[in-house]
Order: sequence, then C-alpha cells, then structure tokens
Amino acid sequence: MKEILSTKNTMVKELKKLHKKKYREEKRQYMIEGFHLIEEAVKAGAEIDWILFNQRGKTEWTDWLEQQPDELLIYVSEEVLVSLSELPTPQGLIAIVKMPDDEKKIEFTGGWLLLDNVQDPGNVGTMIRTADAAGLSGVILGEGSSDIFSTKVLRAMQGSNYHLPVIRKPLAGIIAGFKESKVPVYGTELNREAVSYQKITNSKDYALIMGNEGQGVASEFLAMTDQNIYIPIKGAAESLNVAIAAGILMYHLENNN
Amino acid sequence: MKEILSTKNTMVKELKKLHKKKYREEKRQYMIEGFHLIEEAVKAGAEIDWILFNQRGKTEWTDWLEQQPDELLIYVSEEVLVSLSELPTPQGLIAIVKMPDDEKKIEFTGGWLLLDNVQDPGNVGTMIRTADAAGLSGVILGEGSSDIFSTKVLRAMQGSNYHLPVIRKPLAGIIAGFKESKVPVYGTELNREAVSYQKITNSKDYALIMGNEGQGVASEFLAMTDQNIYIPIKGAAESLNVAIAAGILMYHLENNN
Repeated sequence: MKEILSTKNTMVKELKKLHKKKYREEKRQYMIEGFHLIEEAVKAGAEIDWILFNQRGKTEWTDWLEQQPDELLIYVSEEVLVSLSELPTPQGLIAIVKMPDDEKKIEFTGGWLLLDNVQDPGNVGTMIRTADAAGLSGVILGEGSSDIFSTKVLRAMQGSNYHLPVIRKPLAGIIAGFKESKVPVYGTELNREAVSYQKITNSKDYALIMGNEGQGVASEFLAMTDQNIYIPIKGAAESLNVAIAAGILMYHLENNN
Repeated sequence: MKEILSTKNTMVKELKKLHKKKYREEKRQYMIEGFHLIEEAVKAGAEIDWILFNQRGKTEWTDWLEQQPDELLIYVSEEVLVSLSELPTPQGLIAIVKMPDDEKKIEFTGGWLLLDNVQDPGNVGTMIRTADAAGLSGVILGEGSSDIFSTKVLRAMQGSNYHLPVIRKPLAGIIAGFKESKVPVYGTELNREAVSYQKITNSKDYALIMGNEGQGVASEFLAMTDQNIYIPIKGAAESLNVAIAAGILMYHLENNN
C-alpha cells in the first residue's frame, strides 16, 4: 500500500488535473468520490486504477478496503484528500477509474433518451438517473451536451452510468438509425405542430430527444422526427425545467408499453 | 434618482445582508436579479423598494426603467452591482422587494403540494415552478424546507412564486385541514403499504406530500395520510431525485381531473 502525505507530490498534482475534461480525455481516467459511487463502480466491473483514502475513510470502510487489491490502495493525508476533492465536505474516499471505451453497440429497441446540447451538469446527470429508474434502454449524448465524467454529473447520476449504456455520438446519424429500424423518434418542442405527450400511446420502442435549456432541440433534429410532442402548461409558468420535462415524458412513455 | 458608486456606502452594506435569511426576515425584504424575474414581480404587484442598475442595465432596459417611479431607481457602479450580485455573470439589474405577509388563506380545493423538510434550494424552487406549470392551487412549505427568498430558490422558481400561493406553515395542521375538508392526502414513500401512483385516478382535489432528499417524508405525516404512493423503479437506480418524482406525480394527478 502506497502512502502520500504531501500535496506537493507529483501524483497528486497529476490527479488534480482530472477535474478538467481535457486531461480526463488525455489520461482516459476520471475521479469519483464517496463510498456509494465507488461501490457502484466496482460492482459494475469498472476498472479502478487507484483508491485513495484518509484516516476517516480507513476507519469507516475498513472491511471494504481490506477486500480491495492492495496495489490499488493509497493512504493519503487529510490535506491531500481535501486538495483532490470537489465536495464541500469530502467523504474520505476517492477512486480513480478508467474511462470506458465509447464503443457500446446501440440496439434500436426499447426506450432511448437523446440529449441535444443539454449544458447543465445537474440536468444531464439527473436525466440519466431518471432514464435508469424509468427503465429505458440507454442514453445518447449528442453534440454539446455536458461531459458525464465531471464530478457534478457523476454525483447527479448516482451511479446510473454503470446501469445503462450512456453513449456519446452525433445525433443526426442516431436519429437516422432509429428511423431505419422503424422506431418512432419524438422531438420535444412548444409549437402548433407538436401534440400533447398524452396522445402518444403504445410506445414500446422509441427515441425521445430533449434539448438545450434555453434554445430547446435544434431545428435540424426536430425536422427529422416522426412526431414532436409537448407538455401542456396549465398555470402561468413559461416552461418546465428540462430534467423535469424529461422525467414526465419518460415515465409516460415507459408506462404505455 | 439616487446614485451609489462606492461599495463602502452604508446602504450597499445593508443590502448585502439580504443574502442571509436572518436579515431578510428582520428587514422583510429580499433581492431578485435580472430583468425576467423583476418584470414578473412588478406584473404580480409585488411591492418594490428599490431598483438598482448599472450602465449595462441602463442601456439594455432604458424604456422599462423610464416607466418605473423615479424614487425607486438607483444608478450604481459596476463594482457596487457585482458586490451585491450572487450570479456568476451579473445582469446589471437588481430589485429589492418587500416580503409578502404569509397570511394567504388556504382554500382546500384543487391540487396542493406539501414539502416536508426539502433542503436543496434548487429542488424547492424547481418543484414550485413545476406546481405552477402543472396547474396546482398552491404549495405549502412545512418545517425545515428551504427558504424561498434565497437567490438560488428565486432563480429556480423563475417567478412562479408570483403565480401561485407559496405558504409557510407547519404540516400537521395543514394535513388535518385537508382531511376535514374530505380532500385526499397522499404521502410518498417506498414501502409495501404504498400503492403505485398510477392507481390514483380521479384526483380533482388532493394534497401531495414530498419529503426530505435523504429521509423522505417524516413518519408522523405518513401516518396521517389517506394513501401513500410510490413511483415504480424499473431499472437499477435506487431512487429518483425528489423534484423529478414530484413532477411525475403532479402531472399524473392533474391529468386525472
């Protein structure tokens, strides 16, 4: 078991860089914090490069740590752990995980959530968690959507990235793929050609596109869909938060199987 | 029209205190930022004490500012505006608004959302915005739920606090009130006595209780309800985000009228 006590240690400096997307992609690694997420990663067979823990982590998770391969374990000082953590109150346990190759095959069956340029990390993470809960087959992140390996998205996903495929691909080709497979593609928008989501019944297989917080789904994608749908607003609110809208739509579509 | 150019000005120091709940309640004032929210407040007849704007605000909202009573207007320097703002990129316009008296009467008809100890400001704000969009009659904030006059909640509500009553009251009395009025009260939980939300039909009038992010609804309130409901989880996620769950339930209940 290694031990790192100084924040000036070269490895600490290297690991800190994983807070930036550019370095994550270069190193093909990302960082997760806290027992719950790390346990989910291990259960899912994610490849763990390092497990860092301080005295608190050692005390709280003694049994679990003893079951991990010794060559992965690094005992760190409180200062080192705090310097690496992005949580307001660090939990004493951090794992460095190998990024999966994005080569998962998309099977055009079941429900799929397609995200077009959704920027808020909390929204992206929450939508993936909801897709998991609702029983969708997977999530496609199109152009511009937030990187799922940032701490904020990882925290909002609560491990759902280990439960269903989350694939980064340009949406135009994906939409074409669903259409070739005769799977209906639904865009979300607020105009007169769109129909209320409640009109959609019998949705065993489908692709649902949710768009950017401000601009919605890009018009080029809306033009490719089979049907665009909207959620009726009865009160005086101008719109719904995109993650809330996605939740309502996914639960509706999944319950129409 | 007043003018404040120094961050050392006494009024600036006083206004900054409004970022803290204690001072908001003492002064019975709160702060909103950006044109959209301020316009909503003015439209709704909220009592505005001051409108602060910098050069950018003056340039962008000249016409609107000219229509406001001159005695409310304060031109401030960029430094003053930045020092008061809680946004990453301040929009050049801040209003100081009188806090409404919480003496709105609750009419026990239609749909009501009751929040028990929901702590995250984003969750509370988003749920109020969704309640507005779905067409509920109002929202009750019970013990422990986040203060709605913090910048984060105000931003997440997007002005919905001006569209429907949002009332702070202990929940036990409120639940009793709904029951006396023969309005069904639904608690949310994940146990065997609860039924899937889809079993609830014909919900013209109802009260829906959503609970704390970690602990859920307090057992004392769950024991008072007519029926407890849950949202089925089909995938491997352990739970849904509370604001997402609230969105799914409110849209389901409102569409069963």
